[in-house]
Amino acid sequence: MIILGVDPGIATVGYGIIEYNGNKFKVIDYGAILTPAKTSLEYRLSLIYADINKLIEKYKPDCMAVEELFFNTNVKTAIAVGHGRGVILLAGEMNGVKVFEYTPLQVKQAVVGYGRAEKNQVMQMTKIILGLEKVPKPDDTADALAIAICHAHTSHSAINR
Amino acid sequence: MIILGVDPGIATVGYGIIEYNGNKFKVIDYGAILTPAKTSLEYRLSLIYADINKLIEKYKPDCMAVEELFFNTNVKTAIAVGHGRGVILLAGEMNGVKVFEYTPLQVKQAVVGYGRAEKNQVMQMTKIILGLEKVPKPDDTADALAIAICHAHTSHSAINR
Repeated sequence: MIILGVDPGIATVGYGIIEYNGNKFKVIDYGAILTPAKTSLEYRLSLIYADINKLIEKYKPDCMAVEELFFNTNVKTAIAVGHGRGVILLAGEMNGVKVFEYTPLQVKQAVVGYGRAEKNQVMQMTKIILGLEKVPKPDDTADALAIAICHAHTSHSAINR
Repeated sequence: MIILGVDPGIATVGYGIIEYNGNKFKVIDYGAILTPAKTSLEYRLSLIYADINKLIEKYKPDCMAVEELFFNTNVKTAIAVGHGRGVILLAGEMNGVKVFEYTPLQVKQAVVGYGRAEKNQVMQMTKIILGLEKVPKPDDTADALAIAICHAHTSHSAINR
């Protein structure tokens, strides 16, 4: 099973593509889509949409795992990131890739085994699980890989239930 | 100048297409895109995206006017509507249609001449300005027409400045 994990945003969208077979992980690719500041929101959205489409075309993932937004304070940021997340989900739907959504709590639980884990713990566990030498940068990329792991673990336990 | 006004949403997206030439308005079409509840968010986004694309293809607007989101209270709703707004802006960008954004305050100011106008006053003025027999339903449709009028007035005064 090939999973495309995505950490949504407008300026930075993290992505990670992993293969999960027989309880083993293989990292295929990871990185971040960066959109230029001081360009229009609609232009930035079109860059994100185009790049997610390209990733799907290139790696043909079986599914996408996208982090749910969780904001308590800044409504303005929440709305902006909502725009970005909208075009990411659209790219999945338009390509017939099934989309799964996970809260930050679910990701922590699945990766560290503890829903209140610190961000750094999640990153270190992501590195160890995937056998990477370093924690990928920027943080959004590491987050995207963690979301992909979360889906692997969640769907795996669902199958074996 | 043909203007496509859009009132963003997930369940209901209002739209209104008007022509504005030499200070005169002509209504071309209006209505609402409705997406079925209890279907996935990504499916609903794909319906909105497809319908906005169809409207652009059919009416070839010179520009789009899309209401800005303004939420003080419900972050969850704000995020959801942000998703919808994202794919609406994307449709404009992908079709090369210039997108303009207006706050509810700007719309009220442009249509009624008073930023604190009541919703009903905006609707009544929209009906009168466009020479309609009734206020279009649902409210989202009337809002979309008001946003289109707002852009007509704003761009007109910008040209004549």
